[in-house]
Amino acid sequence: MTREQLAHNIFTKKTYLCIGLDTDITKIPRHLQSHPDAIFEFNKQIIDATLKYCVSYKINTAFYEAEGLKGWEAMERTVNYIPATHFKIADAKRGDIGNTSAQYAKAFFETLNFDAITVAPYMGEDSVKPFLEYKDKWTILLGLTSNTGVKDFELQKVITTNEILEEGIHVTKNTINYLYEKVVATAIEWGSQENLMFVIGATQPDEFINIRNIAPQYFFLVPGVGAQGGSLKSISEKAMTKDCGLIVNVSRAIIYASEEEDFAAEAAAIAHQYQHEMSLYLSSCIR
Amino acid sequence: MTREQLAHNIFTKKTYLCIGLDTDITKIPRHLQSHPDAIFEFNKQIIDATLKYCVSYKINTAFYEAEGLKGWEAMERTVNYIPATHFKIADAKRGDIGNTSAQYAKAFFETLNFDAITVAPYMGEDSVKPFLEYKDKWTILLGLTSNTGVKDFELQKVITTNEILEEGIHVTKNTINYLYEKVVATAIEWGSQENLMFVIGATQPDEFINIRNIAPQYFFLVPGVGAQGGSLKSISEKAMTKDCGLIVNVSRAIIYASEEEDFAAEAAAIAHQYQHEMSLYLSSCIR
Repeated sequence: MTREQLAHNIFTKKTYLCIGLDTDITKIPRHLQSHPDAIFEFNKQIIDATLKYCVSYKINTAFYEAEGLKGWEAMERTVNYIPATHFKIADAKRGDIGNTSAQYAKAFFETLNFDAITVAPYMGEDSVKPFLEYKDKWTILLGLTSNTGVKDFELQKVITTNEILEEGIHVTKNTINYLYEKVVATAIEWGSQENLMFVIGATQPDEFINIRNIAPQYFFLVPGVGAQGGSLKSISEKAMTKDCGLIVNVSRAIIYASEEEDFAAEAAAIAHQYQHEMSLYLSSCIR
Repeated sequence: MTREQLAHNIFTKKTYLCIGLDTDITKIPRHLQSHPDAIFEFNKQIIDATLKYCVSYKINTAFYEAEGLKGWEAMERTVNYIPATHFKIADAKRGDIGNTSAQYAKAFFETLNFDAITVAPYMGEDSVKPFLEYKDKWTILLGLTSNTGVKDFELQKVITTNEILEEGIHVTKNTINYLYEKVVATAIEWGSQENLMFVIGATQPDEFINIRNIAPQYFFLVPGVGAQGGSLKSISEKAMTKDCGLIVNVSRAIIYASEEEDFAAEAAAIAHQYQHEMSLYLSSCIR
């Protein structure tokens, strides 16, 4: 899916919602747990009920791998079931040395027909580029994530080597940046606005304006709204671009909206609420 | 497997070799490619031939995921085939927010019976701790990897927040460190020498003494010897501890030693060479 197609879908449907299929067999409604293909059946009903309120689905690979072979099969069936109108994200957080990242890219872009994959930046350029070589696919690099652990490394202050003097160190304030900023600023040299996005968590709204300065036109995949407490309004006001530039993911707050037989209808009702709120920001927040 | 058991195996067998099963269906001998279960059959023959020369096998998940469901099944069969005498590593480079990392831990420590998994540190504490909660399993955190991309972020200089003054910045040299050092120094607060190791690439021998100062007794999983060019001698001299403290991985140089029907015997011959070299360092390098 091209950026133009994605933006077209967003403005036609008036939503930039992504629904996260973090499908945990122990959390799905009891009446489905004995189903021979419970995970896929749950996903299918969620997808059928929510298609019109979202532009994207995100499959969190961990929940499928936890179930082994049966889980991997449910992931295959789910990605094949999502229609081509929807942007299909493998939330896999992969990344390894070049020849290994090439295998991960093959796994998610060829063997499985995802449009995008989330990638961890720690190992640097040769761990990310094999994903970017797929020009019709998207690499979504971790920037500033939504979890509490951001304080450990992502929000670590960094200093570029050139600015270190031989005897002691003296640098001016504007040369100091966080690691995640360095990641974003470095990665935009590797990809383009047509094949690279960043994960920026909604739980860090104060950072959004800053990140937009570094990557003014890049799409952000935004987790952290919903169960994690981030504000949709705040991040929409701070980071929306003229073609939206945001895909906001909600997982647990939608898919586990009800534990009863009405779970799909309840999921649709919550998704509809998000879509309605997003439609307002699409008409008021565009910069 | 406990640290004591691992060290016992190393000194009994006089080897700290790990063989990396980066099994690429396009690179295995032609006569096996049409086998209905080619990946497992290749692994089985490699394992049978090399068991006595190594203490560990490392399964690189990317190569299995690239083959989809069939690949995942081959991974399951392979990990089940490796005997309990050998330390089984899932080289998966996983890591996500807490509830998702818990699912990855379940996938590799429960659903699949690995002893250890490699984990990416970028997302911080809550992305790593769910793995460490398995006290009888091992988390192998990426420290300084063996690829060229280390220059981008792992070897990025960092500065701790406490040392930044209000007006301008003035810090002394010993407060500046690389990101990977910060990762190692931070993570040893989360785990112990009994359930945490670090990936330290053999392609960065100059850093080994420094890393040993930060984590004097931790085991390191060392990739980068073999196809990537790192020196076994150099890292053994610089980083061996009294219970060895090193697991050195070789993948391609062993498993693709021959493209012919003798591939397993040739793999064993190369593994034997490494084992012989390691036996010398085990008697001369212990500190």
